[in-house]
Amino acid sequence: MLPTSLIKEIARAEKVSGKFLLSGIRSGKITVSFNPSARKPAVFRPLAIGEGLRVKVNANIGTSSDSTSLEREMDKLSVAVAAGADAVMDLSTGGNLDRIRRAILSASEVSVGTVPIYQAICETVRRGHAPEKMPAELIFDVIEKQAADGVDFMTIHSGVTMAGSAMAIKRRLTGIVSRGGSFLAGWMMKNARENPLYENYDRVLGILKKYDVTISLGDGLRPGSLADANDAAQISELNILGKLVAAARKKGVSVMVEGPGHMPLDQIIPHIKQAKKIILGAPYYVLGPLVTDIAAGYDHITGAIGGAVAAWAGADFLCYVTPTEHLGLPDERAVKEGVMASRIAAHAADIARGLKNARAIDDELSNRRKALDWKGQKKRALDPSKFDDAARLTPRLASSKNAVCSMCGDYCAMKQT
Amino acid sequence: MLPTSLIKEIARAEKVSGKFLLSGIRSGKITVSFNPSARKPAVFRPLAIGEGLRVKVNANIGTSSDSTSLEREMDKLSVAVAAGADAVMDLSTGGNLDRIRRAILSASEVSVGTVPIYQAICETVRRGHAPEKMPAELIFDVIEKQAADGVDFMTIHSGVTMAGSAMAIKRRLTGIVSRGGSFLAGWMMKNARENPLYENYDRVLGILKKYDVTISLGDGLRPGSLADANDAAQISELNILGKLVAAARKKGVSVMVEGPGHMPLDQIIPHIKQAKKIILGAPYYVLGPLVTDIAAGYDHITGAIGGAVAAWAGADFLCYVTPTEHLGLPDERAVKEGVMASRIAAHAADIARGLKNARAIDDELSNRRKALDWKGQKKRALDPSKFDDAARLTPRLASSKNAVCSMCGDYCAMKQT
Repeated sequence: MLPTSLIKEIARAEKVSGKFLLSGIRSGKITVSFNPSARKPAVFRPLAIGEGLRVKVNANIGTSSDSTSLEREMDKLSVAVAAGADAVMDLSTGGNLDRIRRAILSASEVSVGTVPIYQAICETVRRGHAPEKMPAELIFDVIEKQAADGVDFMTIHSGVTMAGSAMAIKRRLTGIVSRGGSFLAGWMMKNARENPLYENYDRVLGILKKYDVTISLGDGLRPGSLADANDAAQISELNILGKLVAAARKKGVSVMVEGPGHMPLDQIIPHIKQAKKIILGAPYYVLGPLVTDIAAGYDHITGAIGGAVAAWAGADFLCYVTPTEHLGLPDERAVKEGVMASRIAAHAADIARGLKNARAIDDELSNRRKALDWKGQKKRALDPSKFDDAARLTPRLASSKNAVCSMCGDYCAMKQT
Repeated sequence: MLPTSLIKEIARAEKVSGKFLLSGIRSGKITVSFNPSARKPAVFRPLAIGEGLRVKVNANIGTSSDSTSLEREMDKLSVAVAAGADAVMDLSTGGNLDRIRRAILSASEVSVGTVPIYQAICETVRRGHAPEKMPAELIFDVIEKQAADGVDFMTIHSGVTMAGSAMAIKRRLTGIVSRGGSFLAGWMMKNARENPLYENYDRVLGILKKYDVTISLGDGLRPGSLADANDAAQISELNILGKLVAAARKKGVSVMVEGPGHMPLDQIIPHIKQAKKIILGAPYYVLGPLVTDIAAGYDHITGAIGGAVAAWAGADFLCYVTPTEHLGLPDERAVKEGVMASRIAAHAADIARGLKNARAIDDELSNRRKALDWKGQKKRALDPSKFDDAARLTPRLASSKNAVCSMCGDYCAMKQT
């Protein structure tokens, strides 16, 4: 149960009534990710997503086997939160995973998510075994350990089945691109056993319920290319996820669902509308979608295009994509770029969805723009630091009132009329 | 008349038949911007836009009163063309305007556009007069001079009228944000005279016809903020532009129409569909649209979101927006970022519009991605240089076959299945 003070705080931040918020939570159309197990920092803004609320943005951070520094990840956490991320996920697979996760949890002002299967694989490999030797028991132990640590939401790939993953592997251009999904597919094939997270879904729910963890049903079979979008594997998994949503709600576990991935622009709106029906109106958490496969180095932009359209159509939560997606682990700069691009998409969608007062900040900034009031614009800008950059290039912007920028110089349209 | 060899070349590049192309040109749904007056460089790809063709991208370059270096603009031209711009516009308002334009014209491998009113204002001011003292005759002289120089398409604000600009000035949050539009509005008010480009539209057409220049009907009253989108001033100008399209076609002048600007995401598709009807199916050339006003520093992203949706809905030509829009004149880096963002939007729209073979390159790249073939991906990427950046950070990507990147490292999903 969420503390009443928290409900009030969220309602105030979202500019909705407490009654609306509670009714959304009760129906499952709104989720609040807040695990009270661990001490949270003094300032903590739990992730609230769903119909009628502002579209939120997640930033993935975490080490890989190539880059294991805790310090670096703490820097990325700071950058992500400063840039306005509403949640972070620790996807670490390198270094001391418990230590990294606990450090992030105790420092993060926003909800923290994880993908417990990553730690289960890493621990198996570190014990000198092949990944498919992972004992099924280990994954439940990891889920419980991470829940006890205070993780607020967890990606659990319970929808990846033997049948679904076989379809994805056989018929697709890019097979399985989800790390958790591909690991589970390999595990199932090599052990000739069904996914333990699917078979023992009730056990998963039991642990999450005990610690008040939100389940984020992973889309292990999400399309990794335009060619694979909305194919049989993706839709069969989505249908399973719909059933898992119902089961989670029955158990009283807060649930959201993850979505693609790569998808042609014209397929996004119908997909989101269909998906929201199948998952019974649960919050939908999409990665992108990326509207082309060829833009490595600019995938924050392809993701912002897809994300804006997806959120306009009903997606509630955008996982950022950074410029280095498909190229390497993001650095601090890529983290900031990724958060900013997703925030633009989310805000554009809030306005398009008709969220009350969403456009007020745009109107205020434009009013200041018309007045050539640079300080007033900076105050309302998504990234005020960009106005400092501009003033460094054109010093009069900082020093004088009603100055024109170097774009039009003396021929500024705003100044002429 | 376009040379037959050019028609064949364009048809081949666009993967359409010569018959389709000619029929599109005859109906006015396709325009080819090619002014044969000046010597063009050996490699020259004229701008062909419209229904059934690939969506194209324009890059604005040119000096301002703050930054007058010809060299700098030639560098920007190189960067824009190397990044894949399909056209450039020289919007110079600083330095020796004739010299800059001629240098760009003789070097540019792609069609070059201008906004002649800029030069007319600059020359008036340099003669020591207030802008409103511009003699109407001067603007026609400038149009003819630039046409004789070989400019391929020109933005002409013939749709800005006394009535329309009064509406925009009185009722809007951000008034008139087009430089040409705001100048003409000021000129009309102060001289109590109608816009000479509207009153003497036939004379404009006569000059453009003589030199085979495409007219790009400027939207001097485009919205400069979300609040002003699709308002009475914008739509009244659009209705006038529809009539001016008909008149241009009657005279045998190649014509396209310019569009917004700033526009909420949910208004873009209906706007484009309405506009394309009003302008009788002429190619529609949009600036953005920007889906939020608050993202200065990231307006290439807000523009890519709006541009992708606009082009999907039927816009044919995207004017890039750079990260420095609303902050200052773009440098070379901003030019490249702007072109790339617009190319992503255009390509996403080509796929969504169902343009034949548009997705082939995505499928090819994804096939190489699945094979962990970095060289193969680089070859097909929108910006191959990004793969060199990645290889500098993770040298095994350049040196070994089937290497994994630092994102997932040992836990690469592509490698696992």
